Amino acid sequence: MTAVGEAGGGGAASAQPAVKDPGTVRPGGRTARVRAAVLRAACDALAEHGFGRLDLTDIARRAEVGKTTVYRRWSTAAGLVADLLDSMAEQSVHRGDTGSLEGDLRAKARRVVATLNDPRQGPLFRAVIAASTGDPRTARALRRFYGTRVEEWAECVRLAVRRGEVPEGTDPHEVVRAVSAPLYHRALISGEPLDDRAADRAVAAVLAAARAGVYTRAATAD
Amino acid sequence: MTAVGEAGGGGAASAQPAVKDPGTVRPGGRTARVRAAVLRAACDALAEHGFGRLDLTDIARRAEVGKTTVYRRWSTAAGLVADLLDSMAEQSVHRGDTGSLEGDLRAKARRVVATLNDPRQGPLFRAVIAASTGDPRTARALRRFYGTRVEEWAECVRLAVRRGEVPEGTDPHEVVRAVSAPLYHRALISGEPLDDRAADRAVAAVLAAARAGVYTRAATAD
Repeated sequence: MTAVGEAGGGGAASAQPAVKDPGTVRPGGRTARVRAAVLRAACDALAEHGFGRLDLTDIARRAEVGKTTVYRRWSTAAGLVADLLDSMAEQSVHRGDTGSLEGDLRAKARRVVATLNDPRQGPLFRAVIAASTGDPRTARALRRFYGTRVEEWAECVRLAVRRGEVPEGTDPHEVVRAVSAPLYHRALISGEPLDDRAADRAVAAVLAAARAGVYTRAATAD
Repeated sequence: MTAVGEAGGGGAASAQPAVKDPGTVRPGGRTARVRAAVLRAACDALAEHGFGRLDLTDIARRAEVGKTTVYRRWSTAAGLVADLLDSMAEQSVHRGDTGSLEGDLRAKARRVVATLNDPRQGPLFRAVIAASTGDPRTARALRRFYGTRVEEWAECVRLAVRRGEVPEGTDPHEVVRAVSAPLYHRALISGEPLDDRAADRAVAAVLAAARAGVYTRAATAD
């Protein structure tokens, strides 16, 4: 079991936490295997009982790795979560490519919904977001993770600009983030139903706004 | 110092945690004063170091109230946070009434930005949202709080429908939530700047979508 997040790609079952650590790790080497096992255990623990009770000794036991190794490499629970997020960010995702911005964004929105409703990934993401509110290191790692995902999907918007679906100068990152925002708001704050209907409405709203030029850089001079 | 949240009204300085508890409390009675002092102390503690370290003994000391009283009335940190949110919800806010939906929603959006950037209320809201991810009672209280605020601002949308600014059948609650969503997404997830420009862009996006009929109940049959 792994955490790929709205990441997704081929689905959680097929993915493993990435184990790249250039310079120190041979692919498939012991260090890489230890990291994969520890990050997998961290996912399990986070999904089960959140960040507040994340404990490196428990992680070492779950991962069947020496406690000293875990403490030496990750030091703290926050350090471990930051590394988990970096590992998730390293996993490339297949963004949508349906030929229309609506189709691509709909694929993105439905993936966010599926992730947040997933019995394992949903609690994991909530735990990491909660942890980030009180810990700057986790917050930075969370931002790197989402920044990577947003950039991957931004290409859909660039293609749509070239096809003339949305105005020249539309900010691709703002469009992608705007699709996710109401879905995270439902998951974390309002508790309104988080389903494909919510996903499709989020996309319809963003498309209307994008076509009206709301997300062009000129509109806000940023 | 108190927590009024995006609540706001006349500004944090003038407000106190509400002390209504019909049937058990005379306004200004001892029970009401104790509740006000304890909730104020809870705000301080949450803003200072989050939910994870909220401790009823510390709260009792800060509030200069007997420990037994605090434990008997609130039992747990989660119970105290739920009561704090209910108290915040009880405080009526003055929603915008600028004569246009754009003006009203802009007032709402800028209030959300001011709250989330406030050195006291920002950390308080982040702490409560984080706590709600791991505790159903806090999550329910958070939803009640936001539900109250959304309903207060929904009237702006109803007026706009009557003025013909947005289509008949526009869901007022969806519109109000859609204004907040990208701002909370910046605060909790992306870390993008949270300023009046972000507030105004959120409003422009919602207006474009609302005018296009995205938030009519018919559009999603809910």
